[in-house]
Amino acid sequence: LLEGHPSITLELASQGRGAGGGASIEDVVRAEVDVLFSCLPSGLLGNHLPEIGAGLVIDVAGDHRSSPEWVYGLTEFVRSDLPVARVANPGCYPTAALLVLLPFAAAGLIAGPVTIDGLSGASGAGRSADETLLLAALHGNARAYGPNPHRHVAEMERGLADLASADLTVSFTPHLLPIARGLLVTAHAPLTGELDDAGALAVLHDRYRGEPFVRVAESWPETKAVAGTNNAHLSARIDARANMLVCSSAIDNLGKGAAGQAVQNANLCLGLEETAGLEAIAVWP
Amino acid sequence: LLEGHPSITLELASQGRGAGGGASIEDVVRAEVDVLFSCLPSGLLGNHLPEIGAGLVIDVAGDHRSSPEWVYGLTEFVRSDLPVARVANPGCYPTAALLVLLPFAAAGLIAGPVTIDGLSGASGAGRSADETLLLAALHGNARAYGPNPHRHVAEMERGLADLASADLTVSFTPHLLPIARGLLVTAHAPLTGELDDAGALAVLHDRYRGEPFVRVAESWPETKAVAGTNNAHLSARIDARANMLVCSSAIDNLGKGAAGQAVQNANLCLGLEETAGLEAIAVWP
Amino acid sequence: LLEGHPSITLELASQGRGAGGGASIEDVVRAEVDVLFSCLPSGLLGNHLPEIGAGLVIDVAGDHRSSPEWVYGLTEFVRSDLPVARVANPGCYPTAALLVLLPFAAAGLIAGPVTIDGLSGASGAGRSADETLLLAALHGNARAYGPNPHRHVAEMERGLADLASADLTVSFTPHLLPIARGLLVTAHAPLTGELDDAGALAVLHDRYRGEPFVRVAESWPETKAVAGTNNAHLSARIDARANMLVCSSAIDNLGKGAAGQAVQNANLCLGLEETAGLEAIAVWP
Amino acid sequence: LLEGHPSITLELASQGRGAGGGASIEDVVRAEVDVLFSCLPSGLLGNHLPEIGAGLVIDVAGDHRSSPEWVYGLTEFVRSDLPVARVANPGCYPTAALLVLLPFAAAGLIAGPVTIDGLSGASGAGRSADETLLLAALHGNARAYGPNPHRHVAEMERGLADLASADLTVSFTPHLLPIARGLLVTAHAPLTGELDDAGALAVLHDRYRGEPFVRVAESWPETKAVAGTNNAHLSARIDARANMLVCSSAIDNLGKGAAGQAVQNANLCLGLEETAGLEAIAVWP
Repeated sequence: LLEGHPSITLELASQGRGAGGGASIEDVVRAEVDVLFSCLPSGLLGNHLPEIGAGLVIDVAGDHRSSPEWVYGLTEFVRSDLPVARVANPGCYPTAALLVLLPFAAAGLIAGPVTIDGLSGASGAGRSADETLLLAALHGNARAYGPNPHRHVAEMERGLADLASADLTVSFTPHLLPIARGLLVTAHAPLTGELDDAGALAVLHDRYRGEPFVRVAESWPETKAVAGTNNAHLSARIDARANMLVCSSAIDNLGKGAAGQAVQNANLCLGLEETAGLEAIAVWP
Repeated sequence: LLEGHPSITLELASQGRGAGGGASIEDVVRAEVDVLFSCLPSGLLGNHLPEIGAGLVIDVAGDHRSSPEWVYGLTEFVRSDLPVARVANPGCYPTAALLVLLPFAAAGLIAGPVTIDGLSGASGAGRSADETLLLAALHGNARAYGPNPHRHVAEMERGLADLASADLTVSFTPHLLPIARGLLVTAHAPLTGELDDAGALAVLHDRYRGEPFVRVAESWPETKAVAGTNNAHLSARIDARANMLVCSSAIDNLGKGAAGQAVQNANLCLGLEETAGLEAIAVWP
Repeated sequence: LLEGHPSITLELASQGRGAGGGASIEDVVRAEVDVLFSCLPSGLLGNHLPEIGAGLVIDVAGDHRSSPEWVYGLTEFVRSDLPVARVANPGCYPTAALLVLLPFAAAGLIAGPVTIDGLSGASGAGRSADETLLLAALHGNARAYGPNPHRHVAEMERGLADLASADLTVSFTPHLLPIARGLLVTAHAPLTGELDDAGALAVLHDRYRGEPFVRVAESWPETKAVAGTNNAHLSARIDARANMLVCSSAIDNLGKGAAGQAVQNANLCLGLEETAGLEAIAVWP
Repeated sequence: LLEGHPSITLELASQGRGAGGGASIEDVVRAEVDVLFSCLPSGLLGNHLPEIGAGLVIDVAGDHRSSPEWVYGLTEFVRSDLPVARVANPGCYPTAALLVLLPFAAAGLIAGPVTIDGLSGASGAGRSADETLLLAALHGNARAYGPNPHRHVAEMERGLADLASADLTVSFTPHLLPIARGLLVTAHAPLTGELDDAGALAVLHDRYRGEPFVRVAESWPETKAVAGTNNAHLSARIDARANMLVCSSAIDNLGKGAAGQAVQNANLCLGLEETAGLEAIAVWP
């Protein structure tokens, strides 16, 4: 990635891990690096903002996603705001949901409430050694989780408002899947007018033509086809009986849903190729 | 199951398999047995109806679910219609969806459109040696499948109308999970009035109190807790921001979603204990 | 299980869990119950032996497997020693390995070193919230684990000596599989004389004819066919080129490999049917 | 991979698939390409040898692994024989077994019989829509498979003889794992003299120092750490009680075990960088 850019250094700030070698959070935050990718637990990075040594900060955690001083880094919708010094990386579920919903919302084609079911691999819950995340507990298992509303709902609604000027209520339920990585979102939204399958697909095709990381196809997206990549696969159909849009989006929760999109944003902020370091393709089968 | 009932014999009619030993479908259908459980492919059983030798026919396939001459066998809602000679066993997705939605629909608490996402283990697709159902293709994978509307939508809407006198439009999207068995349905429905979490749970508790195979709990149901059983686990919450009911239901697609409910119906038709042969509990972990 | 036996009570002693409700280990151990099933961590039960209130103690942990005051509870080989007041339940790997090797060892058909590879589901590692046992770490993964020699080696060699008067060296390597439960052992042993496939199978068939929990078949055993049961599936073949016996054994590590065999032993000690409470069959698929 | 090498074209010959677009096997075989990678079913490629248009043929199938006119392409052991026009790519199990055993065999440190248990992901069985390879049948399942001796045994013994001048008998049993890709081999071999853990590791370290695709470590290798790559991870220990070497090797059955090694061989034959196109690292978790 950084070959030929010797002056660019990176730091990953996370509690206990990325810091490594005895370095404290303070040490990492103050380091004179080019980019600081932060995954600090909620609330921690804010305390250190004044001391940050890096020219560019990408906050992978959720603290600054609604802050006006940070760019909400859903890259495909904020390129004109980059480069910038502070990027709030979107959450994994909002990334998947917004990518597939924003084109319809921006065109005024859907009304609320938008109901969204999200399915995430276990790595989405982090690396904490929690008994409910053991293979023995999750193997062969699937379930919804979390309270209503999930903290990602506000981020989704705000994204629809800010990036598509659409005032849509979202009802979202996340589910845990017995897979290591991968995230699938399926959304249902009432149509405001006439739209058929071909028209729905065309909305997505038109919006994402030329995008390096977004693929639109008629077949439903699947998580395995994007695992290990920064790609998002999208599709949409019309349920004519219910007069609803049904659309689905697959990303890798650790790729486009986290670290991949963070690097994509950093690339643009640093004047690198947007795809630098992100050309991996999924392994099949 | 049938110990002490020497006169009760069963037959399973399916194409090629159950028949076994060279017996033709005709032979099986004409056999003088007490119960005929039929899983014949769509359209086949109808041709043989006049020749059926069994006193009781449980059609596990979908041919007769809308026929007025057959009882739609969602047991918990049709006990007063049993015993009967012809039972059309419900589909797996409709069983899960109707069990959790009917109490709310019957009380007039929800409006349409009801959006339902279903997640099914791979055994729901049958035993056909299809390349897309290989472990190599499904491992670590999840995706929506099928056209819109799925053939189960009409069955769900008819069930809501017939069993709860509710005229509700359903938008349903099934998904395939990388597990062998287990089915989860999560449904979102607009509320018609005031309801909170406790009230939503109470609707389910009140309806299913004393039911041997239905368990209502505050925690979201999970597929592994019902795999290998005839049980259904249900829960419900309110998404107050969106003014929607969010409810979820877990069954074993081959248990309460197919063979288990078929035996439950047969038990009632034959005057046996409803739970006979169905006391298995799930294996954990 | 215990219907009709109101005087039989059971207690499960484990640290923190089974005790429940604030009861201390001391309370449980001293309780005037009929059977005490102990899964206490290594070393703990011994401290409490003098205070034990139960007439029958089944130690599922490994502390007493080499103690002359306890019967080593590989049920099929110690029935004549039962009933007894103290049973040391065998380990999961030794149970699987000994069941398939003992008939050959007893007949003097094999020499050492016997090389054994064991494959176990993640529940074999217990319920500890260990980062290496998370689904995210184990999904799609398999590896050997542990030091050489594994603590189960001595138990295997002692079992071969005590139950088959065979002095055979064992080299054993356990592996972790990405499944919740199930244990497979494949063993290779040099032949001492002539034996062909049919002869090898006959050795197993002859030894286990009539055994309720042991099935011998020509096809290789698979873990899923015994998961959730107390059954052991065995097979054997001859590798004529290498002049070796190759044999394989599948059990549920939590069934015949732990709790199932504990109940089997308790049944015999209490004068119950040996199969009482253990008739579950595996769920397929 | 081939950027800057416009004259290098590749063809993949396989029955029905790779040929695609109506091209017959004959068309593909006769094509004037630089490299022909053939995965034709056993026996087919031989019929077409005289017509082959490609300058370099890599036979990924097993037909020519014992042919003196072909180089047996276990790259790390045949580099001095390359470039060559005909490479017989090794099988997946032999690749994993030979990589970890050859250094010990070459040094005369082990005797036979060498017992090897192999564990393979389901993609090792190919893409045929076989009922026993369905996710529903394999999920949560593990078992040995195949007859004795497996066709790979002769290849392993020949490899030990040709590449290490060692006359060792091999007893090999393959197993099927519920994972999509990945292959693990664990081997046990009697020691001919003194060797301890550190010495065993040193044998591997010394042999593979500087090898781009082979990593030696003290911890047992795991399949997930090499999935999607051309890497092999090796380790070894001594079972002092049994006086045996215990060693284990993990590769991706479709990487170093098939297509990866085929490309590695092609690179060397074409004068490209050996690692060209093969720098992928495994995705974790």
